Amino acid sequence: MTGPEMKAGIPGPGADPGWTFCLDGYDPLLENSVESRFAISNGFLGIRGARATSRGQRWIVPARTYVAGLFDTSGTEHATTGLVPAADWLRFRIMMAGGPLLHHPGDMSSHHMTLDVRQGALFSAGRHFDSPDLGIQVRTLRLASISDRALGLQLIQMEIEQGEVDVAVEASFEGVELGLVIDRLDQDLGTWRTRHSGKRLAMATTSSLQIDGRDLEPAARGPLTWSWNWKTRPGQIATFQRFVAVVRSDAPDLDPGPEARDKLGSARHVGWQDVVAAHKAAWGRRWHNSDVEVDGDAKAQRMLRFALYHLNGAANPADERVSIGARALTGDNYHGHVFWDTEIFLLPFYILTWPEAARTLLMYRFHLLNGARAKAAAMGWRGALYPWESADTGADVTPEQVIGPDHRVIAILCGKLEQHISADVAYAVWQYWQATGDDAFLLEAGAEILLETGRFWASRAQREADGRCHIRGVIGPDEYHEHVDDNAYTNVMARWNIRRALDIAALLREHWPVRWISLARHLGLEDAELAQWLDVAETIAIGRDPETGLFEQFSGYFALEDIDLSHYAGRSVPMDVVLGRERTQASQVVKQSDVVALLGLLPEEFAGAAAETNFRYYEPRCSHGSSLSPAMHGLVAARLGDAEMALRYLRQTAAIDLAETHVAADGGIHIAALGGIWMLAVFGFAGLTLRNDGIAIDPRLPAGWDSMVFRIQWRGRHLKIAIDQANQSVEATLEAGEPMALTVGGDPHPLGRAAMLAVRFRKPGAASC
Amino acid sequence: MTGPEMKAGIPGPGADPGWTFCLDGYDPLLENSVESRFAISNGFLGIRGARATSRGQRWIVPARTYVAGLFDTSGTEHATTGLVPAADWLRFRIMMAGGPLLHHPGDMSSHHMTLDVRQGALFSAGRHFDSPDLGIQVRTLRLASISDRALGLQLIQMEIEQGEVDVAVEASFEGVELGLVIDRLDQDLGTWRTRHSGKRLAMATTSSLQIDGRDLEPAARGPLTWSWNWKTRPGQIATFQRFVAVVRSDAPDLDPGPEARDKLGSARHVGWQDVVAAHKAAWGRRWHNSDVEVDGDAKAQRMLRFALYHLNGAANPADERVSIGARALTGDNYHGHVFWDTEIFLLPFYILTWPEAARTLLMYRFHLLNGARAKAAAMGWRGALYPWESADTGADVTPEQVIGPDHRVIAILCGKLEQHISADVAYAVWQYWQATGDDAFLLEAGAEILLETGRFWASRAQREADGRCHIRGVIGPDEYHEHVDDNAYTNVMARWNIRRALDIAALLREHWPVRWISLARHLGLEDAELAQWLDVAETIAIGRDPETGLFEQFSGYFALEDIDLSHYAGRSVPMDVVLGRERTQASQVVKQSDVVALLGLLPEEFAGAAAETNFRYYEPRCSHGSSLSPAMHGLVAARLGDAEMALRYLRQTAAIDLAETHVAADGGIHIAALGGIWMLAVFGFAGLTLRNDGIAIDPRLPAGWDSMVFRIQWRGRHLKIAIDQANQSVEATLEAGEPMALTVGGDPHPLGRAAMLAVRFRKPGAASC
Repeated sequence: MTGPEMKAGIPGPGADPGWTFCLDGYDPLLENSVESRFAISNGFLGIRGARATSRGQRWIVPARTYVAGLFDTSGTEHATTGLVPAADWLRFRIMMAGGPLLHHPGDMSSHHMTLDVRQGALFSAGRHFDSPDLGIQVRTLRLASISDRALGLQLIQMEIEQGEVDVAVEASFEGVELGLVIDRLDQDLGTWRTRHSGKRLAMATTSSLQIDGRDLEPAARGPLTWSWNWKTRPGQIATFQRFVAVVRSDAPDLDPGPEARDKLGSARHVGWQDVVAAHKAAWGRRWHNSDVEVDGDAKAQRMLRFALYHLNGAANPADERVSIGARALTGDNYHGHVFWDTEIFLLPFYILTWPEAARTLLMYRFHLLNGARAKAAAMGWRGALYPWESADTGADVTPEQVIGPDHRVIAILCGKLEQHISADVAYAVWQYWQATGDDAFLLEAGAEILLETGRFWASRAQREADGRCHIRGVIGPDEYHEHVDDNAYTNVMARWNIRRALDIAALLREHWPVRWISLARHLGLEDAELAQWLDVAETIAIGRDPETGLFEQFSGYFALEDIDLSHYAGRSVPMDVVLGRERTQASQVVKQSDVVALLGLLPEEFAGAAAETNFRYYEPRCSHGSSLSPAMHGLVAARLGDAEMALRYLRQTAAIDLAETHVAADGGIHIAALGGIWMLAVFGFAGLTLRNDGIAIDPRLPAGWDSMVFRIQWRGRHLKIAIDQANQSVEATLEAGEPMALTVGGDPHPLGRAAMLAVRFRKPGAASC
Repeated sequence: MTGPEMKAGIPGPGADPGWTFCLDGYDPLLENSVESRFAISNGFLGIRGARATSRGQRWIVPARTYVAGLFDTSGTEHATTGLVPAADWLRFRIMMAGGPLLHHPGDMSSHHMTLDVRQGALFSAGRHFDSPDLGIQVRTLRLASISDRALGLQLIQMEIEQGEVDVAVEASFEGVELGLVIDRLDQDLGTWRTRHSGKRLAMATTSSLQIDGRDLEPAARGPLTWSWNWKTRPGQIATFQRFVAVVRSDAPDLDPGPEARDKLGSARHVGWQDVVAAHKAAWGRRWHNSDVEVDGDAKAQRMLRFALYHLNGAANPADERVSIGARALTGDNYHGHVFWDTEIFLLPFYILTWPEAARTLLMYRFHLLNGARAKAAAMGWRGALYPWESADTGADVTPEQVIGPDHRVIAILCGKLEQHISADVAYAVWQYWQATGDDAFLLEAGAEILLETGRFWASRAQREADGRCHIRGVIGPDEYHEHVDDNAYTNVMARWNIRRALDIAALLREHWPVRWISLARHLGLEDAELAQWLDVAETIAIGRDPETGLFEQFSGYFALEDIDLSHYAGRSVPMDVVLGRERTQASQVVKQSDVVALLGLLPEEFAGAAAETNFRYYEPRCSHGSSLSPAMHGLVAARLGDAEMALRYLRQTAAIDLAETHVAADGGIHIAALGGIWMLAVFGFAGLTLRNDGIAIDPRLPAGWDSMVFRIQWRGRHLKIAIDQANQSVEATLEAGEPMALTVGGDPHPLGRAAMLAVRFRKPGAASC
């Protein structure tokens, strides 16, 4: 007999479908996407959701654990820099005489996997009757601790339902030789080094097994390997536990082994129960600060929770040497490289719910400023041009070519031409500073980024015979059109960047004159140059029709072939693949939000009806050939009052990673699209805007959303915002910080600590547009 | 000083560009395709062309060696059967203190790889100056012996150009735990088993290293691992050699280890020089029998040689339990599964140049006849319905779903509906018997296949109210159209199959009455059933317009939307992806030769102008969404006299695997397309047809081809055919066998052993089409 206290031995997932994602059975085709979707991560370790006790159908690839910042470079010709996976520390096999018992999930009579996003842990449960002699129920848990990010924990509980046979279990690491060069492998510690980049990695580990609560002595030990033998009897419960502690070293002569052993020692000392408790408590804090609760639309609630889970798992406020790659730590598409995705699609979430993480992500850019200066200088410009794809050194690691969907090798020009990244970094710096009031960051890092990026644009834009400054030969966010002139997004963001640089120069000069003097000296900035910047900002071409406010996406765009995308509704691949690259380049088909992104980021550039005019022109021409595109369109649609279209875009965005008939997430979840989901909800449906004097809310909830509740942080204040659709009301609570102004539906209200503010945001009878 | 005899130590590649394929440098993006293209294979072992001393950019996947027939099945839900790669036996590392010296090809100052198809071996040469202390020139050779197919050989010669340092080299296996379950790993022998399919594998190996011709004692040994240390000096030559002997066992209780050790022992005994010599001699015989020499078009010559190399390397006449997968043994796309590709696109080459291999491939189908009977019975029909995708057991292993180019999961109906495979197998059986006169095969196996497949069709076609028999609900070769009725290819091939079954019944009854009685009893075949077959053959609907001879591809095809493919010239993906599956299904767009394939296989069904009429109708509607399609179109175009179009199709076919800006060969070369290249040359340009009373030649060489020379075998005879374009003449030599009739340009000529026959094939002034 098994007592209930035994069964309760290892924790299980919650039952609330708003907080859990489940999968029954096993489909080899979907396995890669499932591994991405069910990955666990703490911003330092990312562990794909491979099965705990078995391999998928790819006989050859071990499960992958990623370590943030563990970059290496292969080869010299077309060298590729990318994240190197660490060894798989989760390998676990149950064996009977004659070979492993558990090979494939398909061997199980049942198999159920649950990602509990509230707990930040992956669970599985299954029954095995591989042999008529033995029936085992297996439950597993794994987590990457967010209270101590070096730590991974794996628990496996085997309950013997029938059979008295000799079994053996073996816990080991797989793929120890595949990605890295082995320094040494001891029983409890492996250390490796990268082949070229001079980094080192240590993984300290310990495993133990209890039978009915009593430790069983291992029958054999090896490097990173333990095995046990025993005879089963019905009702028996065997509990396996394994810790791993992972430490990265960025210096070839700094051995990360001792620190890994240290971290492991602490974890063993407190025990797995307390490690789990601390981890859950840390997730509780993250959820308290960032959850978005939606009543009335359970599907949207789940999409949001999925997004928030991965967003909270992607960042590590303690490591300023890494940022978040395009697939976070859930897969190796894009090799862990960092794009504008981080600044434009992720930072808003972190700035408003987790400013410590936001600051760290911006410090990553600050530490790599020299690389950005070098890139600008190499191309003949001043200031800082950030790499289009960034890894650990500040060098541009954009591949020179990729393989297209037709297996053809295509040259990639983005590394040279997609320059808006510098304005995007500046934008995020400004937003962070505006939202947090973190002057220390501004003085230490932010001002220098703003000035150097502004300087880049002022040198990049060239005055021509028409008296205007032009930026020729770039790629905007719409990458279907290469080598274009005066891309609206680029030029308007560049102008904005220069203006903010001038604002900062003026601010420093007035408020922190000592810092200004030293910074201006450091940068060689003189007044004449600032005057030149102003002149560029005043005269830069922006291609806006003065009558209608309609931007031309780039010079000559309106003369291109206008293709009606509704005729291509059946297509199942991007439009450039359908039409061929040449015809696409000669058409108005847009890959992803470009003018629409500008509208999302700088709505003040679109006065009066211009917002509507631009959106209605560009939205039908966009083929959404990037996962970034739908959420940005949804955000703008919501702000324009078209909540139904916005909801469609929300669902389209969520489907990228969650549609169960798709495998787009094979190479990792699309973290920027998930960031876009939060932006769409908070900036779109709640209509949040940041102002100099406070924040504003202008809700446009979709039909069926009864309410939406979320928290944000603004200049040291913690606010809870609850929007009620039926009452058309907003309830705001200032949970911490000084009184402030809150504008709801256009009307300012004082918000103090004493009481909750409740405001009707739309007068009865008013048009809801 | 290094003597020339030392340098001559390990063989090098030839210099003739007609026989060699080279690659300089290293491009991570192209590496997968290069590995396929430069694979070496002997029909039992297939070894991808991964670099000898290094890893590519995929940090995680070892080089792959495939063993024919080593299938395993993963999971139970959507179970996948596929070839399991064996451990990588080629791992070799050169190390200096502080880690491996050779990591990536990019580390080399130069790197040159040469596939010498005449020798059937892969060579490389490179210089390493990774460290200022040491310069090494490295040359390598690897081969999979076609004189003893169990054997692999690796030779590596290191010539020290500068440096006196301590180096170590290590030879080991990689990935020993990744695909298979380890039985045991000894110093010189590893044995494994598959997880589910009950197969076993043994790899026996030995390595040695000579410094300037003297054996160096290993410093350390481990399972499948040797390492050596020594101090370099300039001029020194170190030569490494490794054998591997691989044996597969299909019975779980039959240990393949002793046989592998045996094979290894013999190879060691004769030494690598003699192993290389025997291998080269065996390739020499294959080239003598199968080479196609083209003068005047060096590019086409190379394409042909590439095709012939892979065709000769794909088959193993000694193993009747395996056939040739869609990517042969060069990659794992399609998991090693066997399709109609083998019978329709590969068998013609083997039948006419290597009948022993052809017989073996057909015996594979014979051994799996029970599986085909079971499939027919399970679907409610009689006789034998071969699996659309076949592995080792006779079960249909077609996946139920695949992932489309848009990452969507698509249901695959071919396993159930693409039934023409049974007629294709029958077609190959008949062709083999016709071309070889191998009555023993007919009596042992061929007759039973023909009768059982004929029986299938006679039960599959159902008489309807119109008095005709119909085959409803199939997929023809054009897989864009699923669940169609009376597909022309299927119905005409079915009719042909039934008729040949009736022919065979009559033949056996007359010539081998004892065999007929026992076979008819075994199959339960009675005269009444044969009468029903005849009745079906006489009344089956074939959708041919009696006036024009134009076939309707299937019932209702002509009513579908007619889309002009020239408007979609820019597309870079198949038409079903461009239009979406639904619209494609409702259109006349054809995926691959369907009626055109029928025209290629059964030209006698297209009387008078019907061949031209059908080709000109279907050719412009074909989007060539399969690699099988262009060569079949080229073959028909050549027969119709359009040699220029045929040449375009030849180039298009060769580009699939050889275009250097494409990576379509990532998952292996397209062996059926390569078979199609030979067919296009011999059946198309030479205009070869097999007749009951001899063979016929009707040359249509493309402009620029001065001459074309090839050999074939026909009913025990060996013929050499030389076509001269300038003289419009054919020279035929009967190199072995009895006198026969040879028809050239429509006129029959006797061909004897005494002298060469020289015939003008086109009278001066005659129209050339």
